[in-house]
Amino acid sequence: MALSPHHMTLVLGGARSGKSLHAEGLIEAWPAPWTYLATAQAWDDEMRARIALHRERRSGDWITRDVPIDLPRAVAEAPGPVLVDCLTLWLTNLILAEAEVEAAGAALIAACAGAPGPVVLVGSEVGLGIVPDNALARRFRDAAGRLHQRLAARADHVVFMVAGLPMIVKPAPGANP
Amino acid sequence: MALSPHHMTLVLGGARSGKSLHAEGLIEAWPAPWTYLATAQAWDDEMRARIALHRERRSGDWITRDVPIDLPRAVAEAPGPVLVDCLTLWLTNLILAEAEVEAAGAALIAACAGAPGPVVLVGSEVGLGIVPDNALARRFRDAAGRLHQRLAARADHVVFMVAGLPMIVKPAPGANP
Amino acid sequence: MALSPHHMTLVLGGARSGKSLHAEGLIEAWPAPWTYLATAQAWDDEMRARIALHRERRSGDWITRDVPIDLPRAVAEAPGPVLVDCLTLWLTNLILAEAEVEAAGAALIAACAGAPGPVVLVGSEVGLGIVPDNALARRFRDAAGRLHQRLAARADHVVFMVAGLPMIVKPAPGANP
Repeated sequence: MALSPHHMTLVLGGARSGKSLHAEGLIEAWPAPWTYLATAQAWDDEMRARIALHRERRSGDWITRDVPIDLPRAVAEAPGPVLVDCLTLWLTNLILAEAEVEAAGAALIAACAGAPGPVVLVGSEVGLGIVPDNALARRFRDAAGRLHQRLAARADHVVFMVAGLPMIVKPAPGANP
Repeated sequence: MALSPHHMTLVLGGARSGKSLHAEGLIEAWPAPWTYLATAQAWDDEMRARIALHRERRSGDWITRDVPIDLPRAVAEAPGPVLVDCLTLWLTNLILAEAEVEAAGAALIAACAGAPGPVVLVGSEVGLGIVPDNALARRFRDAAGRLHQRLAARADHVVFMVAGLPMIVKPAPGANP
Repeated sequence: MALSPHHMTLVLGGARSGKSLHAEGLIEAWPAPWTYLATAQAWDDEMRARIALHRERRSGDWITRDVPIDLPRAVAEAPGPVLVDCLTLWLTNLILAEAEVEAAGAALIAACAGAPGPVVLVGSEVGLGIVPDNALARRFRDAAGRLHQRLAARADHVVFMVAGLPMIVKPAPGANP
């Protein structure tokens, strides 16, 4: 299977900035089957509604898997193009489970490099507001920023979403500037 | 009257990022009279001072109207170039008045499309910090993000302000890349 | 000493976006000695650890000075390229000391213009989240936004960091677009 050269893409942006929809469009430019790795855990009705909305939007060509913790393995096992939605909730799950965040990040990067198809990862940018009062929020914010930096350094293509539109942070190889 | 092709412009950015000043400059590039639609409601002294400061800055060629709720009608009735400052406070007013946010957004888009002159809309980006604790703030943040996405999809030109300088999100038609 | 034309550079971005590392790289492209002006005050262990980490990373060619308040004088006295890290903590120190923030900003701009070598200033963007509940945080956010705008207007080069990668806000003179 000849894949696009955009092997690893990172889609960053704020809440309701159109990250997931943009990421789905990138994946659907490759041949199916498409794997959607959902890291959200449905703790409450608000989250359940959000998950249902995302799921409805995707066509029958998508395979959806719930992967709250073991994301590296799921990326490595995906049969084709794979969408990780999202890094931020994965990180939250890791921290709540008291897992090793740095090691998990390294394992994810290795899994992306070895994945059979292209990988698109979605992450929420959470570091552009006032410093949070509570220490756990600051720790989370730091971990998210570090993970995004490590992934962005390896990614072939990075975008920052604003109001549903992608701003290019790192141009895709071969793209016009 | 031959207007610039930039019929609808969206100016996004954080607090104190120079959104209003940039938007005023865009409007003043067209012939007067210029209409300023102010959505701010002066609840307290801090807000009154802010409104007064913005008002002082604008010359006598500006017509200022206070429009906390019925923004679509005011946009449609403006005699020439019109500046909406800002979407974020309008949305706050709608939510506090328990108005239909989605329908109001659709009415605003229709009004922009039918306006006799160019429209410049200013909105605050509020979705790039830590997820807020309270549900109302999350609901507001989601509504703002959705409104911005819908407007950005229709706009001819979208900028994201950083420290008073515009970053191009969607280039104006005919602009050099 | 023939310096690069990038006399004054402003590096903005969120928490953990790679601002300091990028700024250090800009400074190290000029001949040593390099001066690092640290505005952080070690109030607690979390801050002490952060300061130690930054200090370890820099080589012996760096002169480090702690400058919580009198930044303009320290910039003017630096013998060569100087890195200010960061504006945000400086502003916090000024506000806590009840100093004149506007006057200090003007003095800093004058010092940058008169400095013998290039100046790189790092600042945290804090205005892209939900409006903070407390008035002091809002006042701080406003002061930071205004300071960044004033510096960006004078700077030769402004970048906005996302996940360790610089997005160009104002291109360096002579740079390819």
